[in-house]
Amino acid sequence: MLDQTLLPGVVRYIDAHTHADVADAIRRLAVRGAPLIGIAAAYGLTLAARRGEDTRRAADELLATRPTAVNLRWAVDRVLAAGAEAAESEARDIHDEQRQADLQMGELGAELIADGMTVLTHCNTGSLATGGIGTALGVIKTAYRQGKRIRVLVDETRPLLQGARLTSWELAHERIPHEIIVDAAAPALIASGEVSAIFVGADRIAQNGDTANKIGTYMLGLAAQAHDVPFYVVAPASTIDVNVADGSSIAIEEREAGEILAFAGRQTAPASSVARNPAFDVTPAGLITAIITARGVLRAPYHTSIARIVQQPAVVR
Amino acid sequence: MLDQTLLPGVVRYIDAHTHADVADAIRRLAVRGAPLIGIAAAYGLTLAARRGEDTRRAADELLATRPTAVNLRWAVDRVLAAGAEAAESEARDIHDEQRQADLQMGELGAELIADGMTVLTHCNTGSLATGGIGTALGVIKTAYRQGKRIRVLVDETRPLLQGARLTSWELAHERIPHEIIVDAAAPALIASGEVSAIFVGADRIAQNGDTANKIGTYMLGLAAQAHDVPFYVVAPASTIDVNVADGSSIAIEEREAGEILAFAGRQTAPASSVARNPAFDVTPAGLITAIITARGVLRAPYHTSIARIVQQPAVVR
Repeated sequence: MLDQTLLPGVVRYIDAHTHADVADAIRRLAVRGAPLIGIAAAYGLTLAARRGEDTRRAADELLATRPTAVNLRWAVDRVLAAGAEAAESEARDIHDEQRQADLQMGELGAELIADGMTVLTHCNTGSLATGGIGTALGVIKTAYRQGKRIRVLVDETRPLLQGARLTSWELAHERIPHEIIVDAAAPALIASGEVSAIFVGADRIAQNGDTANKIGTYMLGLAAQAHDVPFYVVAPASTIDVNVADGSSIAIEEREAGEILAFAGRQTAPASSVARNPAFDVTPAGLITAIITARGVLRAPYHTSIARIVQQPAVVR
Repeated sequence: MLDQTLLPGVVRYIDAHTHADVADAIRRLAVRGAPLIGIAAAYGLTLAARRGEDTRRAADELLATRPTAVNLRWAVDRVLAAGAEAAESEARDIHDEQRQADLQMGELGAELIADGMTVLTHCNTGSLATGGIGTALGVIKTAYRQGKRIRVLVDETRPLLQGARLTSWELAHERIPHEIIVDAAAPALIASGEVSAIFVGADRIAQNGDTANKIGTYMLGLAAQAHDVPFYVVAPASTIDVNVADGSSIAIEEREAGEILAFAGRQTAPASSVARNPAFDVTPAGLITAIITARGVLRAPYHTSIARIVQQPAVVR
């Protein structure tokens, strides 16, 4: 697995031999992004099955790494249900289906991007988040590959700078014109009229469309509504949690204060200061223009449009 | 002058011998905060006068350092009008009046803070921004000194971390309980109901109450309105620009991309990536609950309440 904590400066791969290696990589964000966490956990469980370990216990260890992205539980449940013998093929299916779903989301979402648009995105929702072309960033890449001249504003995404470090890295590889901004500059740029549309990913979507995503997403939804800019969530169906009625019951991970108080080992705040570090927030469904899934573009009322697709197969083949 | 770029790690003072030394300190943010920029420029002009230099030219050099804070022009104009002989005493008056105004704003603003409240603030608006107790942070300090048990949420304030580095440093000195958060977490914490009130400073206030302040302030105003949390601007009358009708004509400083692309000399984004770095944004008057000045607490319609106070003397003695 590519160690994402070192990007963009260093490209280094991690060998995972056990599910514990995978759990560790997920915990320290060497591997991150809701769909990719699910895929990594599925392969982690495969390692446990191969080694003849108790897969139920391995599953619990993997599930304990991060609480917010529902794809983790979804992938682990699929591999457990498949049984130890079929674990590896199930993990490969999950991975393949995600790549397929990314392409479908890319096509559906790109229809919403016109030539000349400036789009804004948050965190990293590209290949580094899904193993395919990505969700929100996959939509942007697809539009660009279709020949549309677009420009991307990239929220740097504090505290771990997934936007500045990872999204920019992917955009630079694709040669898509982009500018990094501090997160708090996004609302003013949205107000200025230069942002045509906003595309973000998701870590968990409730039955009613409320969406948990990287901290700062809610601020974008508020500004989008205030200035009548379309705000799109792009996510595979595995991100929908049919067990959660609305955003109020989504567990929000609080990460360690050190991510905010220091940078690259250098303390930035006074020694006696403390920090609060919620990693996600919830954007109410009312602020979301549409949710782009591989099964279609969902619109409000989300209760109905979400219920309709969760019965379908993961990928339309 | 205390070099604020090195805080909180290193406390080092700069000796300024010429107005160019002062201009340099303002440009590189060794001295920052709208009122303090004005005070520093006034003393800088005093140095030019003492050295028998052309004060008009020195004024132009000082004015060219930073475009958004109107206090800079206001202070420079006062010293120029006083004449070379009286420059030093005029600079001292400006400094004294700010200290006095801070105390008055502190008293007026503290009436809006009740025991047990959690208040949120952005950037640094304390002693490091005014030479007195501060504007928004002065209000918070005053409430705490009155014995009110309060808690402060401090936006770290990217890219230069004036919240995490400077506001926390002042709060730590005062032993006021506080937690640092990433800027983009503020809207979610406001939505959670735990924020009782928001206090921010200002770099320029238009006739109609539109307020330019550190980038990210607008996001707080939007979230405050969405969740019915009072949003207060605290600023001396010198921050009001009677020559500007509304926020659309306020010049917004764009600073260099390196502030975002690297940290402590270490590149964080890909080498080919670029950044946009607007240092301020404008919060429309409609989002502001009240503007706290030393001359009174102004409420909407600001056109009227602002016009009423700009005729009064700077400090009620």
